[in-house]
Formats: sequence, structure tokens, C-alpha cells
Amino acid sequence: MTPAPHVGVIGLGAMGEPMARHLHRAGRLAAVANRTIARARALADELAIAWAADAAELAARCDVVVSCVTADADVLAIAGALRTAARPGLLLIDTSTIASSTAREAARVLAEAGGAFVDAPVSGGVEGARAGRLSVMVGGADADVARATPVLEAFAARITHMGPVGAGQDTKAVNQVLVAGIAEAVCEGLALGKALGLDRDRLLAVLAAGAANSWFLEKRGATMWDGSFSVGFKQSLLLKDLRIVRQLEAAAGTGHSVVDQALEHYGSLVDAGHGDDDISGLIRLKLRP
Amino acid sequence: MTPAPHVGVIGLGAMGEPMARHLHRAGRLAAVANRTIARARALADELAIAWAADAAELAARCDVVVSCVTADADVLAIAGALRTAARPGLLLIDTSTIASSTAREAARVLAEAGGAFVDAPVSGGVEGARAGRLSVMVGGADADVARATPVLEAFAARITHMGPVGAGQDTKAVNQVLVAGIAEAVCEGLALGKALGLDRDRLLAVLAAGAANSWFLEKRGATMWDGSFSVGFKQSLLLKDLRIVRQLEAAAGTGHSVVDQALEHYGSLVDAGHGDDDISGLIRLKLRP
Repeated sequence: MTPAPHVGVIGLGAMGEPMARHLHRAGRLAAVANRTIARARALADELAIAWAADAAELAARCDVVVSCVTADADVLAIAGALRTAARPGLLLIDTSTIASSTAREAARVLAEAGGAFVDAPVSGGVEGARAGRLSVMVGGADADVARATPVLEAFAARITHMGPVGAGQDTKAVNQVLVAGIAEAVCEGLALGKALGLDRDRLLAVLAAGAANSWFLEKRGATMWDGSFSVGFKQSLLLKDLRIVRQLEAAAGTGHSVVDQALEHYGSLVDAGHGDDDISGLIRLKLRP
Repeated sequence: MTPAPHVGVIGLGAMGEPMARHLHRAGRLAAVANRTIARARALADELAIAWAADAAELAARCDVVVSCVTADADVLAIAGALRTAARPGLLLIDTSTIASSTAREAARVLAEAGGAFVDAPVSGGVEGARAGRLSVMVGGADADVARATPVLEAFAARITHMGPVGAGQDTKAVNQVLVAGIAEAVCEGLALGKALGLDRDRLLAVLAAGAANSWFLEKRGATMWDGSFSVGFKQSLLLKDLRIVRQLEAAAGTGHSVVDQALEHYGSLVDAGHGDDDISGLIRLKLRP
């Protein structure tokens, strides 16, 4: 029996921290790292595991590194650090949402040092991360995905191998078109319902029973109606994702009006200081356009 | 025990015909009428019930008339015919999608002859009508809704009394904002996924497992990917509904970009001759914008 790999997590934000906790419960977590080091130290102390000051130090303690960061540049910086520090065979599983071209570049960097890369962006929101019920979209070589799977199982409800490196990010891009466009639809509809004086609970129940239903209506309908936008997926992060998606649509030559509209709306909301609100905060703009 | 009312159905299209069949199975259907009379005669012969040449003739045979037609003018014409022909106490249950202002006008016309009106637009598509599992959004006075409920139960999974006459149509308008905007989102996303060469079944499964899920993705994702648009909800009918919705948004002063976009897209598809296709045919425009 092969021993379970030592896993390190870098990036302990709203998604990364619960993922690290699930890896700990599964008996796989060896160490954590974070840009704000205090957060890594606090979690390491709580869980009685090691913390590392940076990606290179983390790699020295682990066979597998799981990254959950924000920007494409962060992922490339981690890949560069691992190239220098890593033993051959180190696997980087990146759960961030970045461009598929960046994922392929990170894979090339790792391969130079005999390491491997798998892109594994997730969907299911903060609730999904906390419950360990994320949907993971995986891109990578078969052997690398086979190594990544038992690690991902610690926090996934579903793991889907979509194709070679980058295919996970391509899939996430499609996912974000739906997420952004459904938010536009539900926020515009509920703003109209509110202005018409309809009853919240009866309206939500009747919409959910027919062809208008969606995950977003079920999870965010009541809270957005009440003007509460504290949980969920930050507008600033969706805006970042949509910039990636828009480039992909341009390269593919497919329609882009849904993404253009969402870029405009979330751009103005983030400019107005709402970047930390959940994306259902778009209803502000729909109520007072 | 009060005897079950004699129900007549006028408008035997894709929604009205299965609704009439469910009323027949429930032992309530007395007669049918349709603009193309041959269709009413054929269904009447099959079910061994009466047919009527028009709304006035139908009203003479029934206590309750269920209408399922296309245009606001059709509903006003039926209300006018019933005013002339109807016995006091006749109830018109209109399941069409029309403006809430038209519903209130029809109610005034009926009231002049001692009749009553309930607006009861439905959601759930042709599948919902065939299965007798529609979600019905009802507007009307309490006593009239109480009379309508056992009739609606013949084809409804859920009946929600939203408020006075017109509140059902207001609710349906909100429903159609969501339906149109979700179609934009899902069609744009799947067009991108197709252009990127992703695997259909893996993509649909992974999207459905996370925050991108919706009724429309589950019911229309695979067929639209394969270019099949024969089932479901006709583009020409959504376009008609969206014109009603856009006026309501203008009057309410709420956001309208989702509806504006859908009006433009479905307008050009209907102009290009695709009006009888299901609304998922929007993927044509997204694949070749």
C-alpha cells in the first residue's frame, strides 16, 4: 500500500481554508502557507501541523501542493518557486480560477523540474467548500489526475476529468458565463417583482417550481430580496474571472453579450465600493438603474 | 355536495390541448373550442364530448371557461363574447400570458355581466402541461380563486395565489425575465464550450453539479448542443411575452438590460424564420454572432 501523500495548501482564503480543513480531517494535510503569514500560523497552531513562509518552503515538506489563490501571476509565482525548490515528482494542483493559457504555462514550468501540474478549478461557492461538496473541473495528464483524485476527494462532491492541462479552466470559464448571466436574469426579475409589490415567499416558491428555477434563485433569492449580500462569491472575484472569460470568447469567436453586460455592471459596482459583496448585490443596480 | 362544474376549454394549442386532456381525465371537461374549428371537432370526437364554434357557444354549455390563447386581443374578445352570452356566475380562468393591465380590463368586462375573472398563467413548458405538473400563478378575488382551484388542480403541480386580478400576470412577467436571461446565459456558455472542444456530457454534468445549474440547463442543454430545437417553448411566443415585460419594467423604473438583449436576439431569430423553434435555438446566434 502506497502511503498517503503529504499535502500542503497555499492560499487560505474563503475557499482555501475550508479545503485545508477537509484535507486535515482526511488525514492528509502536512503544512499550510499564506501571503498573510499570520493566517497560516493560526491555522497551523489550531490543527497542530506545520506552516511555511512561502511556496518554496511548503514544497520542501510536501509531495503534493494544493494552491487556491486569486491571480494568474500568483499561480505562475508558485510554479516558479516549486521549480526551484521541488523534488522531482512534486504535483501542483491549482484550484484557482485563471486563464487556461496560464495553466499550460505553469505546467511547462513545473515539467522543467520533473514536476507535474493539474488545473482543478471548483464550483459550489463558499457553502460547497465548507460542506466538502465542491464540483471540481480537472485538466491534466491521466497519471497526474489519478494522483490528484484522492486529494481532491477530501473536499469534492464531484470530480470530472475534462481533458489535458487547461481543460479544467476552459470548463470553469463556461461555468462563469452561466453564473454571471443567471445572476443578471434573477436580479433583474426579482427587482421587477419587488417594484410590483409581489410577496417574496410566494414569488420565490412559484418561480422555483417551474422553468425559471436555478441554483442561484434557490440559494440567493431570499437574501438578495432582503438586501443581504454578505455570504457567497465576491463581486471583485467574478469581475476578475469575467475578464479571463471575455478573452476566451474573443479567441473562440462566439457570442459575448452576456459577459459584456456583466463586465459593465460588476465593473461599476466594484468601482462604487461593493467589491466584497456577494454577486447577488447586482440587484442594487437593477432596482435603481 | 356541490356537483363538479362543467368546464370548457378554448385554445387547443401546445399547452391548451394537454390541459384539456387532463380536465377530461378528471371528469370535468364538458366542451372545447378553437379558432381552427377542425382541431376542436377532432378532440371532441376523440373524447366523446361537445365542441363549440366560438366562445359564446362554449359559454352556453359551461360554468367555467379555461382560455389558453396567444394575444391580449384574443382574451379581450373572449371576455366580450362571454359578457354577451354568459349566465351570471360564469368564471373565466385565463391561462394565457398577457399584460396584467389587460387581465384587469377583462375582469371589468366580465364583472359587467355578473361574471368573474381569474388570471392564471402557467410555467413548466410543454412537458409540464403534458405531465399535468404546471406551476400556476393566480390573480383574483379569494372567492373566485377558490372556485378556480379544483379546476386548475387537474393540470397543476403547484397553484400559488399571488394577489388580486393581474398579480398572476405580474408574476409571470418576472418568471419570463428569468427564463429569457437564463437562456442567454446557458446558450452563450455552451456555445463557448462547444467552440473550445469540450466533451458534451462531461461539461453538462459538471455544470449541473455546481452554482451554474438551472432547469433550462438540465432540460435543454443536451438538445441545444446537438442542434435540436423542436420541443418546448417557441421563440415567437417568448418574443411576444418580452414585449409585455419590457413595458412593465419601463413603468416600474427597474433595470431592463436582460430583457433588451433578449428582445434584440429573439427579434432577429424570429425575423430569420426561427420563430417556431424552442428558445434554446438562441445558441445559433451565440455560435455565429
